[in-house]
Amino acid sequence: MTASPDPLTDPTAFEQHVQGQIDNKTKPQGALGIVERLALRLAQTMKTAAPRLNRCELMIFAADHGIVADGVSAYPQQVTREMALNFLRGGAAANVFARTVGATVRVVDAGIAGDPIEHADLIDRRIGAGTQNSRTGPAMNDNQRDAALAVGAKLAAGSDADALCFGEMGIGNTSAATLLAHKILGLPLNELVGRGTGLDDTGLQHKTSILRDAAARTAPTLPAAEALTEYGGFEIAMMMGAMIDCARSDRPVLVDGFIATAAALAARDMKPEVWPAMFFSHRSVERGHGQILDALDVRPILNLDMRLGEGTGALLSWPILRAAAAMLTDMASFADAEVSGPV
Amino acid sequence: MTASPDPLTDPTAFEQHVQGQIDNKTKPQGALGIVERLALRLAQTMKTAAPRLNRCELMIFAADHGIVADGVSAYPQQVTREMALNFLRGGAAANVFARTVGATVRVVDAGIAGDPIEHADLIDRRIGAGTQNSRTGPAMNDNQRDAALAVGAKLAAGSDADALCFGEMGIGNTSAATLLAHKILGLPLNELVGRGTGLDDTGLQHKTSILRDAAARTAPTLPAAEALTEYGGFEIAMMMGAMIDCARSDRPVLVDGFIATAAALAARDMKPEVWPAMFFSHRSVERGHGQILDALDVRPILNLDMRLGEGTGALLSWPILRAAAAMLTDMASFADAEVSGPV
Repeated sequence: MTASPDPLTDPTAFEQHVQGQIDNKTKPQGALGIVERLALRLAQTMKTAAPRLNRCELMIFAADHGIVADGVSAYPQQVTREMALNFLRGGAAANVFARTVGATVRVVDAGIAGDPIEHADLIDRRIGAGTQNSRTGPAMNDNQRDAALAVGAKLAAGSDADALCFGEMGIGNTSAATLLAHKILGLPLNELVGRGTGLDDTGLQHKTSILRDAAARTAPTLPAAEALTEYGGFEIAMMMGAMIDCARSDRPVLVDGFIATAAALAARDMKPEVWPAMFFSHRSVERGHGQILDALDVRPILNLDMRLGEGTGALLSWPILRAAAAMLTDMASFADAEVSGPV
Repeated sequence: MTASPDPLTDPTAFEQHVQGQIDNKTKPQGALGIVERLALRLAQTMKTAAPRLNRCELMIFAADHGIVADGVSAYPQQVTREMALNFLRGGAAANVFARTVGATVRVVDAGIAGDPIEHADLIDRRIGAGTQNSRTGPAMNDNQRDAALAVGAKLAAGSDADALCFGEMGIGNTSAATLLAHKILGLPLNELVGRGTGLDDTGLQHKTSILRDAAARTAPTLPAAEALTEYGGFEIAMMMGAMIDCARSDRPVLVDGFIATAAALAARDMKPEVWPAMFFSHRSVERGHGQILDALDVRPILNLDMRLGEGTGALLSWPILRAAAAMLTDMASFADAEVSGPV
């Protein structure tokens, strides 16, 4: 006689145990669709059949990009700084959505151009006053990259939230994300380049040609750590560090749009074990996002034609993740409720 | 010199006024996608450029269907009653999701088979102990239909919620919804019939043949009022009355899945003016739902492969509608926040 595998130590037995609980809830099997699959994944990520999701925090990492000097964005660089102040005053979409869904917001200066911003609520972790122009040379050096990764990990470790949303603000960062995805996944550059904050056709052509020049500097594909040094951003590297810590502490990572997905992708390349903790919140209309998601065979929770970043998509997915966890912990089983099964 | 049209009285001027506000929020134009369109529609429905969505209520209408005698459902009829009790104890998915998103729940007995349920929190508005079998004759008479519509309207009028979600419970009600959609829209029956709570292939064939017999009793298409008498359910008619009142009092109607969409469709046929207040929350995997949505060219907010009913999809869309309203009322404009526009 063989002993049954222990759900506490055997991953397959644990999955069967949780799936059995889901199947016994008072609903036809599978009738909650994606919500049921999220519930199972939350249990696996949090290593408990009774995952509790009460506190959510959004960390917004802001930084600037040297490549904007080449005219790759529809908006001027100073908008990164202006939006950081808008976050601190609570006036941005991310603040509004965070209040709506009951999440707290922290704003991190990962490397905004110009002088440091003086504000009591700003978390100053500046790696530099923006990256170098990655068209002509590496965006950052290895020390800066490692510092950003370490700072991000420490910030996530310091948060007592049950799950973390990661947002970003950085004029030019769709260019950085495009180059990262291009070098890490090997997807064609022209299928990844998009309009960002709103380039017209001429602007898009120009951006494509600048990014082609930047990409030509290095080998066709690169490991994530190298791609990050060559083309990344301080906000992206810091977000990666935070994502990795969040996953390692068995907490769900709520991945936002294009930039955050590029960060998640790079984090996966560096630490494959963090991937299962990534919950992709929405499908952005920024072109490269769909390309990455399709390449990774990921179906995000929401599809709302958004393309703002800041963590706005991640925040809107939070109530759905909470509902999935609550299904496991709070919903009655057929036996509890004395409800009949199928005839 | 012509005076500008007054946004308070001119619908086009009002739309332009609200769209102008949305476009001046601190984000690239259109970057919040569907959320921006929801914000405009909320303003139009609620007739204010500053829509406030604080209180949400889910009304669940439960009733039984005579046609289940012909074996059209995978679950026995008593599940309607058992689930009504589950709602009253707070153990169903609808309760769990309502608590997650901060909505209140009311449960209405619109016509559950058997004796009346005695429970302090149950709203007893029974039209009868289930409908008649619509395969052999009308499901209800005109008096019952009109009574159900009137009761639903009164219940909605009595709610002080800012928006209403409508859910249903009724073993057999995908059959009723299928026949309603078939008769009102003229869509082919075999493209509308689905597995409901989980029929296998044999069950689906049997259901299709029963519904074909039922449909053959009457003209190929029917006006909604007649289709409702012939094939409807007490919970569907009551939901229609509630939807119509909700829309007429300038409140958003959060439409759930297949059954609720059939009710919305029938309500539109009876009172076309209520249509703009309908917010379609999710796309169900129950086959007929996609067929109706596509026929009406409606893209719902969520697509989570759900097929449970109870208002579960409507509840999960509520935080997104709240975020859309909050974008209008709480988010800073470029001028407010001193953020630069495009170069």
